Amino acid sequence: MKQVKMGAQTLLYPMPAVLVGAMVNGKANFMTAAWCGIAASTPPAISVALRRARYTFEGVEVSGAFSINVPSADQARIVDYCGIYSGHRQDKSDIFQVEFGSLKTAPLIAECPIKHECKVIHTLDLNSHVLIVGEIMETFMNADCLSDGKPDPAKIDPLIYSTGTQQYHRLGEAVGKAFSMGKK
Amino acid sequence: MKQVKMGAQTLLYPMPAVLVGAMVNGKANFMTAAWCGIAASTPPAISVALRRARYTFEGVEVSGAFSINVPSADQARIVDYCGIYSGHRQDKSDIFQVEFGSLKTAPLIAECPIKHECKVIHTLDLNSHVLIVGEIMETFMNADCLSDGKPDPAKIDPLIYSTGTQQYHRLGEAVGKAFSMGKK
Repeated sequence: MKQVKMGAQTLLYPMPAVLVGAMVNGKANFMTAAWCGIAASTPPAISVALRRARYTFEGVEVSGAFSINVPSADQARIVDYCGIYSGHRQDKSDIFQVEFGSLKTAPLIAECPIKHECKVIHTLDLNSHVLIVGEIMETFMNADCLSDGKPDPAKIDPLIYSTGTQQYHRLGEAVGKAFSMGKK
Repeated sequence: MKQVKMGAQTLLYPMPAVLVGAMVNGKANFMTAAWCGIAASTPPAISVALRRARYTFEGVEVSGAFSINVPSADQARIVDYCGIYSGHRQDKSDIFQVEFGSLKTAPLIAECPIKHECKVIHTLDLNSHVLIVGEIMETFMNADCLSDGKPDPAKIDPLIYSTGTQQYHRLGEAVGKAFSMGKK
């Protein structure tokens, strides 16, 4: 196999395209982020990389709380909108149906299949970005994305961001069962 | 939309299923991880959550280096194998074609479309897991996964892990162009 040296590049497949929510200057704001991952199970934690200049960052820093909203593929257009237009210039407080759980500073997007209320537990300065690590305090799901009470990827129909081509994709065909197909 | 309170859960869609490589006791070892995300652009950084008990963790801690190998969907079986069998009991040093770049303690999997050599720059204790943040020192790609010198998701054919159903999936149909379809 011929290998090509690419230089150090932020290539990871797949990536999500989540909507990070925060209250900024008294209003809900949402930005799109692909640099998001689960960080721990006990307590459940999630990380997201934000640039300091982001409007959302201001809200996360002041309130110590944020939301992670996992969109479905049919929300691609509004997700992209939230990635293009900054809250510095564009009021995004009324583009979604906003709800709250216990954290009144973590605005949740009702339309998204999955939404997490998060409390900041660590911030890690990584120069270009600050890696925000939040404890997931509560997870809400749309009832119609569950099968037998469990999250159903087919119903969630998650939005996938592909770096390089900068395309959004749907989830494709199943190729096998984890913790099973690799057994000796 | 009816909302269901799920308790705090580590639900994120999509997730990758990468192979984390490290040298442990003089041999290359690889484990599967879904809790991985890009953390910064300058310098390029990537994070992965590891349990302290993992054999791979030992190698990362001692050497301060690791690799992130992004597999393709046709590698699902061997990826799953690396997630089921621990290096504590199973020698996984010869199941891949292992190559090295400049970091002699970051074993790279030649068969994987994308591989990153990483140097640990932060470790964050999150109780159940340690979040390892690595600076990406170099990225290698298989030449046949490039189109016009750029990463091509269709050729990479990335492996997607869906939590909940614990299924591996392929990338599905394109739904639109990022930084474009959401323009006013």
